[in-house]
Amino acid sequence: MVKILRVDMTNQKVSYEDVAPEYQGLGGRGLTSAVVAREVEPTCNPIGPLNKLIFAPGLLGGTNAANSGRLSVGAKSPLTGGIKEANTGGQAGQYLAKLGVAAIIVEGQAPEGRLFKLVVKKGTAELKPADHLKGLGNYATVEKLVETYGLKAGYVSIGQAGEMKLNGASVAFSDRELRPTRHAGRGGLGAVMGSKGLKALVIDPEGAGNVPLMDAEAFKAASKRFAKALADHPVTSGGLPTYGTDVLINILNEAGGLPTRNFSSGRFEGAEKVSGETLNAVTVKRGGNPTRGCMGGCVIRCSGDFLDSNGEFVSKWPEYETVWAWGPNCGIDDLDAIARYDRMCDDFGLDTIETGCAMAVAMEAGLLKFGDAAGAEKLLAEIGQGTPMGRVLGSGTATVGRVFGVRRVPVVKGQSMPAYDPRAVKGIGVTYATTPMGADHTAGYSVTANILSVGGSVDPLKPQGQAALSRNLQAATAAVDTAGLCLFVAFAVLDIPDAFQAVVDMLNAKYGLNLTGDDVGALGAKILTMEKDFNTRAGFNNAHDRLPDYFKSERLPPHNVVFDVPDSELDSTLQF
Amino acid sequence: MVKILRVDMTNQKVSYEDVAPEYQGLGGRGLTSAVVAREVEPTCNPIGPLNKLIFAPGLLGGTNAANSGRLSVGAKSPLTGGIKEANTGGQAGQYLAKLGVAAIIVEGQAPEGRLFKLVVKKGTAELKPADHLKGLGNYATVEKLVETYGLKAGYVSIGQAGEMKLNGASVAFSDRELRPTRHAGRGGLGAVMGSKGLKALVIDPEGAGNVPLMDAEAFKAASKRFAKALADHPVTSGGLPTYGTDVLINILNEAGGLPTRNFSSGRFEGAEKVSGETLNAVTVKRGGNPTRGCMGGCVIRCSGDFLDSNGEFVSKWPEYETVWAWGPNCGIDDLDAIARYDRMCDDFGLDTIETGCAMAVAMEAGLLKFGDAAGAEKLLAEIGQGTPMGRVLGSGTATVGRVFGVRRVPVVKGQSMPAYDPRAVKGIGVTYATTPMGADHTAGYSVTANILSVGGSVDPLKPQGQAALSRNLQAATAAVDTAGLCLFVAFAVLDIPDAFQAVVDMLNAKYGLNLTGDDVGALGAKILTMEKDFNTRAGFNNAHDRLPDYFKSERLPPHNVVFDVPDSELDSTLQF
Repeated sequence: MVKILRVDMTNQKVSYEDVAPEYQGLGGRGLTSAVVAREVEPTCNPIGPLNKLIFAPGLLGGTNAANSGRLSVGAKSPLTGGIKEANTGGQAGQYLAKLGVAAIIVEGQAPEGRLFKLVVKKGTAELKPADHLKGLGNYATVEKLVETYGLKAGYVSIGQAGEMKLNGASVAFSDRELRPTRHAGRGGLGAVMGSKGLKALVIDPEGAGNVPLMDAEAFKAASKRFAKALADHPVTSGGLPTYGTDVLINILNEAGGLPTRNFSSGRFEGAEKVSGETLNAVTVKRGGNPTRGCMGGCVIRCSGDFLDSNGEFVSKWPEYETVWAWGPNCGIDDLDAIARYDRMCDDFGLDTIETGCAMAVAMEAGLLKFGDAAGAEKLLAEIGQGTPMGRVLGSGTATVGRVFGVRRVPVVKGQSMPAYDPRAVKGIGVTYATTPMGADHTAGYSVTANILSVGGSVDPLKPQGQAALSRNLQAATAAVDTAGLCLFVAFAVLDIPDAFQAVVDMLNAKYGLNLTGDDVGALGAKILTMEKDFNTRAGFNNAHDRLPDYFKSERLPPHNVVFDVPDSELDSTLQF
Repeated sequence: MVKILRVDMTNQKVSYEDVAPEYQGLGGRGLTSAVVAREVEPTCNPIGPLNKLIFAPGLLGGTNAANSGRLSVGAKSPLTGGIKEANTGGQAGQYLAKLGVAAIIVEGQAPEGRLFKLVVKKGTAELKPADHLKGLGNYATVEKLVETYGLKAGYVSIGQAGEMKLNGASVAFSDRELRPTRHAGRGGLGAVMGSKGLKALVIDPEGAGNVPLMDAEAFKAASKRFAKALADHPVTSGGLPTYGTDVLINILNEAGGLPTRNFSSGRFEGAEKVSGETLNAVTVKRGGNPTRGCMGGCVIRCSGDFLDSNGEFVSKWPEYETVWAWGPNCGIDDLDAIARYDRMCDDFGLDTIETGCAMAVAMEAGLLKFGDAAGAEKLLAEIGQGTPMGRVLGSGTATVGRVFGVRRVPVVKGQSMPAYDPRAVKGIGVTYATTPMGADHTAGYSVTANILSVGGSVDPLKPQGQAALSRNLQAATAAVDTAGLCLFVAFAVLDIPDAFQAVVDMLNAKYGLNLTGDDVGALGAKILTMEKDFNTRAGFNNAHDRLPDYFKSERLPPHNVVFDVPDSELDSTLQF
């Protein structure tokens, strides 16, 4: 019987409870969003005691379904002021699911200045003082925790950024090598964790068995079909394992949609130097592993080890969005520098997208020249040190823009746009504008049909059809995020009909249900409607579903396009 | 025939135009808000080219009616993201009205890095380069302008804060001594002016005659009755001229509503040292003038000269809200230090309320100890220097709270609360929550009936009756701000029936109208509705009409009260 683990930071009490009826049948994002929507006062201060931080594995978590171990983290976001779910790889998702924990709900606030760690074992949970971890980065934090709790646990932690409650702070999750390289990055959830006084979670799966399956045979069969689809699709079996997500640099550059120097151009002259092809070649040359999964059960394995020129480990392969944020978007074409930034962000506990975008806005403000790799490294180091400048940068793109009086600040709902210019990839522009999450590519990845010819084809430069594309993808994504599946399974799901059916069949086999494909789509729509309703109560209306004004008037080279999807279509996107 | 002066900063062109029908019959706030509501794209970036900055004298401006020379400045606020009007004393309001200028509308944006000044003379207007004024504070700016334009003009300028586009930046107006001591302080309007590339305005009234009056005799008679009411009321004839607005320190301290150390108590042990009584005594002892008007035609004269112990001029008398923000709210009881802060804020061009509150939040964050007067002076100086820390502080209270991860940030709609704790003066709490302007005492000064027994009496500690009190005052204030009258006439207007009738009679005599008292009240309601509608289109809903959550749960000593006016009453406050 799965349980919810409720953690009261104010009184340092923990308790297991039954899953309330209104939360049953939900997992991952569906569950974190339901808890936020039902239990969090919408107008509360996100870093005050009334906010709640929720960790939830997906509905397929803990099974041996391929790529099903994603973990969702949810709260009211200090960055956007709205509802937030960020999901992550790493080991904790699978371990929590195997331990029978449907969700951890962290409430209240520890006494000012105190830090705690939550140790979850089979059937037990305990809050323990963690003041000795104060001020440590994620790498040192996990190292210290491993000394006590060993090599078989999953670790969740915040670095200096989360302790400082910076709005760009992430929550870090250890990978299979026990490095804190996987992050619930977006929306400042690390600041919420810091505000609670929770420095770390230890998820020890010892003694946990396999998760129960109502129909084990049917599950096994569906799971095989699912894995086969992932093995068959060229993106999940070829591009991603070989070049990582960074395979997109050359593709987006070619498409003229690679935001360069704070979204002032769609092409970067140094793209080749930071491309996935170069990343792979450099890694192989230096003797690094170019193909790693970020979590157990991954068959795509789009990560790798980035080594320096001496063959020393620097960081996991920086993701495409990280390479972009710190590379083209800052005018930097130095992969070694970018890998160091990635390591620093992982260690301080920072969203690489938000922080890289913030750096680009700082460059636009004249604090540094575009392309100044050494200057960027020095400024980034200030975040860990907590200088005033470091804190501003760590507070994210909108705050840097505000403090330095910058006109061009590429954010929606206070969150920075990721690695696709919405003028040249208009479908993703609709997603940026309308998702309840603030500018976010993962919420409805229209790049599929706009650029990759996956799941159909919609001209990226024209406004027609983008709202429908985004709507369908947003609903599907909410369901994928609820299942706990890695978003990259979508490539197969969109192109191979049986892959989607296999997901439905796995859900039915695990829970003894009779869901249809339509039911799963409807679940996505229901989650989005719930999230939008929370945002309305928190103070959002249609005016928030807009890109910054200059995207409508300043043309993006090389296609010289503006964002011209009509407001009325934006307003209809999430009307189900 | 009055005209509107339209200033296109993009092309540096100016033109006079007739007052469009939809703007006729409006002045001051009514006119600035109408222009913002009709002409400004609600979702635009406040520091981008789509925002507009409007200067408008009131309907009675330029006449010899007592205290009728206030000038309204309006725009979309970079601080709140909503509509904003801030009004000010100084000389420019009377001069503009006498020149027949109903409003100046500043549009577009000068080329990056360029600065201009607008020189307005009878029948002409010209934009001239002002790059030589770059980086100067308001005192040096006005000094330089006086060298060119002489002693008889009115000067409007921004200091370093406005040039940096800081959200706490004010617009400065010269007083009768040609000092830039009167400010349109709130909402960051100085940042809008800076974003336009407009460093200063010179308003030269030479050759301007008296404003036309449809019935001069009737106007004179009504004007006399109005002046008599101001001379008869004890607040406007006794308290204010003698002790300045700082007379309120002892009164609010006694009432337990003087926010102390970032709103953690309602009483300050050092109140007496910074009271109006002390201010008067120190001024007299040092040979300063304790009774000055901030503009021509003022019969209340609540200002004075603050001299240092050597008898040298430091600043005009700091207003009550300034003394409070930097005094009790920062735990500082040193009037000399506060006068220096006031001078620095005037010089850099900063809202003293926003910046003092920001300093108190910085103290709560541990950057300084409460009461550290020298430390506060050093930090404040950093704003003028434009250091990262200075820019954060100059960006206002909410930004300091965000960057330093502070939980207790006393703002509504991003704007800091002024000098009355809403838990102990609940009527002002309703105004803070519901005015379209962000937390603002002047928008509906419920302190009158809550504390001063002016215009009736409503128990400040009880929730009953506060919404109605605030509603009536907000409507009346919108009308007063449209007439161009100093808000302090409200003391007489609320208590002496003939004072209100005299205002109506003056309007009728000037414009040849037949307005009733009800018409004037209805005008206020109409303006508020228009402002709220703009805010809705800019992204506001009821969730923004709330105080920060901790005001509902943390009790304020000495009365140990929370803010408990129900949300439903807040939502009904501005339903007309």
